[in-house]
Amino acid sequence: MTRRVEVVEDILSANDHLAAQNRERLEAAGVFSVNLMASPGAGKTSLIERTAAGLGSEMRLAVIDGDLATSLDADRAAAAGAQAVQINTGGQCHLDAAMVRRGLEELDLSQVELLLVENVGNLVCPSAFDLGTRTRVLIASVPEGDDKPFKYPGSYHSIDVVLLNKIDLLPYVAFDVKRFLHGVEVLNPSLQSFLVSCQTGEGLEAWFAWLRREVAGMRAEVVR
Amino acid sequence: MTRRVEVVEDILSANDHLAAQNRERLEAAGVFSVNLMASPGAGKTSLIERTAAGLGSEMRLAVIDGDLATSLDADRAAAAGAQAVQINTGGQCHLDAAMVRRGLEELDLSQVELLLVENVGNLVCPSAFDLGTRTRVLIASVPEGDDKPFKYPGSYHSIDVVLLNKIDLLPYVAFDVKRFLHGVEVLNPSLQSFLVSCQTGEGLEAWFAWLRREVAGMRAEVVR
Repeated sequence: MTRRVEVVEDILSANDHLAAQNRERLEAAGVFSVNLMASPGAGKTSLIERTAAGLGSEMRLAVIDGDLATSLDADRAAAAGAQAVQINTGGQCHLDAAMVRRGLEELDLSQVELLLVENVGNLVCPSAFDLGTRTRVLIASVPEGDDKPFKYPGSYHSIDVVLLNKIDLLPYVAFDVKRFLHGVEVLNPSLQSFLVSCQTGEGLEAWFAWLRREVAGMRAEVVR
Repeated sequence: MTRRVEVVEDILSANDHLAAQNRERLEAAGVFSVNLMASPGAGKTSLIERTAAGLGSEMRLAVIDGDLATSLDADRAAAAGAQAVQINTGGQCHLDAAMVRRGLEELDLSQVELLLVENVGNLVCPSAFDLGTRTRVLIASVPEGDDKPFKYPGSYHSIDVVLLNKIDLLPYVAFDVKRFLHGVEVLNPSLQSFLVSCQTGEGLEAWFAWLRREVAGMRAEVVR
């Protein structure tokens, strides 16, 4: 097993190197970038559609979409008006920095202010791979249950933002919002959290406002 | 990358070898065994609780529980009356045959008729690792969306049974049951499927009846 551990460490260190290059490139271009992670079906693509619809007229948005096998998600992002690049991972369970670099090469970054990177739907593997984005966002969803921060600490740790999606289902599911938020905050004391429904639109305005501030802050940094 | 591919192949072939040993041991003991796979929060543990409550008085049930970090699931299985063994994967994104072997060593198989192995909540990685169980069951859930068979073909392929859980949420979520089942059946023409709600109990009787038949068939094989 030693050989396996060494190889895994080689891969992670090569990934970190590429992630640093991606980060440098994105920062230089003044692009605010987000690594969107979640379980399958928690609402990553719906959030991207909603965000494109809500902010598309104010800022230039691009999406890099990681998918195991199809282009269903990139099609939805493009239909919602975003510049969309599909990265087919060929079965790999997470995006890595090399894949994101290939995605960046297909985008004209001078025409992008906000980049959403949609990771593979998986609560375990993506968290180990830095992609070079400025921010890590985890989308949880009400039907998954309020115990997920306790059960998937690797993914819930070292995120900057959590969105709890599908709050329209709270009346029909046993879910203790306080228990959930407590679990996330224990792991990330400075966390930003939003309760939203991509179905009804509830709560999304606060997420948009946060993105507006972050994108404006990024512009100000580049101008300086 | 060639070196990485070789190492991955070594691991998979070592796993297959151990899985064959597990299978032999389980078949010899006349234990009907199930590898339960699903996204986080689709309802693996709830299904185990329901199954223990529904069948515990008729057959001897054991659970091997794979979890990243906690023993929450094994606690719930034990509370429902099953012999429960916790396997903490230490962050690994799937169970493997070596972990299941360690679990089997903690069980008295002569006292087990039905073994449920609860895999890590992940729709990508577990499908690559045979555990040596007789059957592979995937639990899908309504809020995840009806597109999952198309997006996670690796997990939806080569399963024996699909349970669609949380059908009590069908009135509140856009989910096309026909589209979902079509997607699963294209990948697995001889598939068994059950529509259930572990919340209300709806549909579970058919799942219990199927398990009864399989466990009885296994007993008959051992007697012969």
